[in-house]
Amino acid sequence: MTEAAQRSASTGRAKLADVAALAGVSVGTASKALSGSGRMRPETRQRVLDAVERLGFRPNQHAQSLHAGRSWTVGLMTTDGIGRFSTPVLLGAEDALGAGKISVLLCDTRGDTIREQHHLRNLMDRRVDGIIVTGRRTDPRPPLNGVEDTPIVYALSPSTDPSDTSVASDDRGGAHLAIEHLLATGRGRIAHVTGPEHHAAARDRARHAVGLLEQSDAQLAGGRVHFGEWSEAWGRRAADLVLRTAPDTDAFFCGNDQIARGVADTLRERGRDVPGEIAVVGYDNWDTMALASRPPLTTIDMNLAEIGRIAALRLLEAIDSEPVPGVHTVPCRLVVREST
Amino acid sequence: MTEAAQRSASTGRAKLADVAALAGVSVGTASKALSGSGRMRPETRQRVLDAVERLGFRPNQHAQSLHAGRSWTVGLMTTDGIGRFSTPVLLGAEDALGAGKISVLLCDTRGDTIREQHHLRNLMDRRVDGIIVTGRRTDPRPPLNGVEDTPIVYALSPSTDPSDTSVASDDRGGAHLAIEHLLATGRGRIAHVTGPEHHAAARDRARHAVGLLEQSDAQLAGGRVHFGEWSEAWGRRAADLVLRTAPDTDAFFCGNDQIARGVADTLRERGRDVPGEIAVVGYDNWDTMALASRPPLTTIDMNLAEIGRIAALRLLEAIDSEPVPGVHTVPCRLVVREST
Repeated sequence: MTEAAQRSASTGRAKLADVAALAGVSVGTASKALSGSGRMRPETRQRVLDAVERLGFRPNQHAQSLHAGRSWTVGLMTTDGIGRFSTPVLLGAEDALGAGKISVLLCDTRGDTIREQHHLRNLMDRRVDGIIVTGRRTDPRPPLNGVEDTPIVYALSPSTDPSDTSVASDDRGGAHLAIEHLLATGRGRIAHVTGPEHHAAARDRARHAVGLLEQSDAQLAGGRVHFGEWSEAWGRRAADLVLRTAPDTDAFFCGNDQIARGVADTLRERGRDVPGEIAVVGYDNWDTMALASRPPLTTIDMNLAEIGRIAALRLLEAIDSEPVPGVHTVPCRLVVREST
Repeated sequence: MTEAAQRSASTGRAKLADVAALAGVSVGTASKALSGSGRMRPETRQRVLDAVERLGFRPNQHAQSLHAGRSWTVGLMTTDGIGRFSTPVLLGAEDALGAGKISVLLCDTRGDTIREQHHLRNLMDRRVDGIIVTGRRTDPRPPLNGVEDTPIVYALSPSTDPSDTSVASDDRGGAHLAIEHLLATGRGRIAHVTGPEHHAAARDRARHAVGLLEQSDAQLAGGRVHFGEWSEAWGRRAADLVLRTAPDTDAFFCGNDQIARGVADTLRERGRDVPGEIAVVGYDNWDTMALASRPPLTTIDMNLAEIGRIAALRLLEAIDSEPVPGVHTVPCRLVVREST
């Protein structure tokens, strides 16, 4: 029996951390096992349930607030509305937290410092156990001010402070999945059309894509990255530009699905066969866009709900025991459709 | 001085309802005037502020929970995830509630009865002051079970029980805005392409559009409504069908922006000039879709954030004084772009 388990057994006040220690798993895994929400090996779940029984841990003590000083509420703060990116993150977090008895207080700061301070004061007044901060962009953001000892996890937009806990998308892995898929399907002259260079999502994906191309036998078509806007109109214009300046291009890797759809439209209207002559890969797996495209788009899915879910589990860890500082990245996944 | 004001003046415990009564406005208006969030005539706001001073009402008593038995939290329950429709409703409600000191507990039931009961029990345990229920569809939904005396307002998806309070979109007004705009711009043979007939949004808009056409000199092109899917692919197929069966059609009114975009794509690809020969009107004002369309779409905006905001104000009324039963409809607005 571990020290923690012995201590708990002697006081009769088992905590989730004690259950986790006895089962030899992280607090997050123990929490998942109890809520029944996460995927794990049946043996792992059984070990946790055995530990629960052995220590007399009662999960519903959450609801009864047996632990003094806990409100069993968590703040979910979005910094710029609830958009296409923050929605799945919020739902993933709500799912992981709500499966237990933790309630989620929703705050929308709309990128306004006064609103942020107003909401933050309100969350502090309500003694939330922790806060998840999320935003629309993947650019790092300054840490929240005035939260004292309340645990915070940053989701999607990581904190600039490396001692904070952040959960971010693996842009490097995403770019590699796209390029490796194009190389594996025999493409050798790959154009990269993406959003504004001052957005981390555009810059990072471009850097990793170009880096991987340089290590391969393939070329970056046109010799440079085409930075622009996150729009279909830019995709349409950029495709014309590439067809003119690098007519032997045989693939486009695009920074998002809107750009990819614009590229696919121009290629079709210029009589170029997709994917026969030219392959197109998008990014985001925004289903409305990717499925309505002609042809439907092969794309990179950032697993946004998983980012929210992991942020929630990291927050539970920080509340129940110790925060894990640093940026935790969640892998992307390649979704193959008819455009490649 | 009104009776309410006299009572308050004598006890020294003014309530928001007393302020509203003295100012001669609704509780919702008084709440808006105090939070500074809503639009109103300056004289109205001044009357409310005068009443506040005269009665010694302190808005921050909200924060101090001077009223026994109030938690100053409200549940925001979405029944089928947070989608394109529920997001602006949620944000409108959060904005109206959060401007005061009311916190919003977010629950996502995902259309699952067990999840709904779980969240509802949790909200009851936390003694929320009220609940806003919203969903993705405009179809009426059965009332929530097991909420006893907690005030509830249904937003977007109205309750089937007429004694409940609901805030819905004015589908009749939206259909009329679209048809009247087409008639005013000289169109006379108007096709209607929309979503599945078992969706209230498709059925209601179609009925009102057809009703208005019957009272006018214009015709429903092809003599029938084209029910199908809420997709671009259906818009593309339906446009081909209409061009074949009613070649003199001079306008399309579409049940959503995705269908309208599909229609516009087919018309362009068949060499038909939009809006020169044929006008196209969408529905939803989903900016990504409406702006990326070639040409950008004239469309109907349901004012979803306003639905959320009004639902929040109706809930505050129900909490502070009496609920107003029935379905309150929020007017739509016509957004004119290049497709008409």
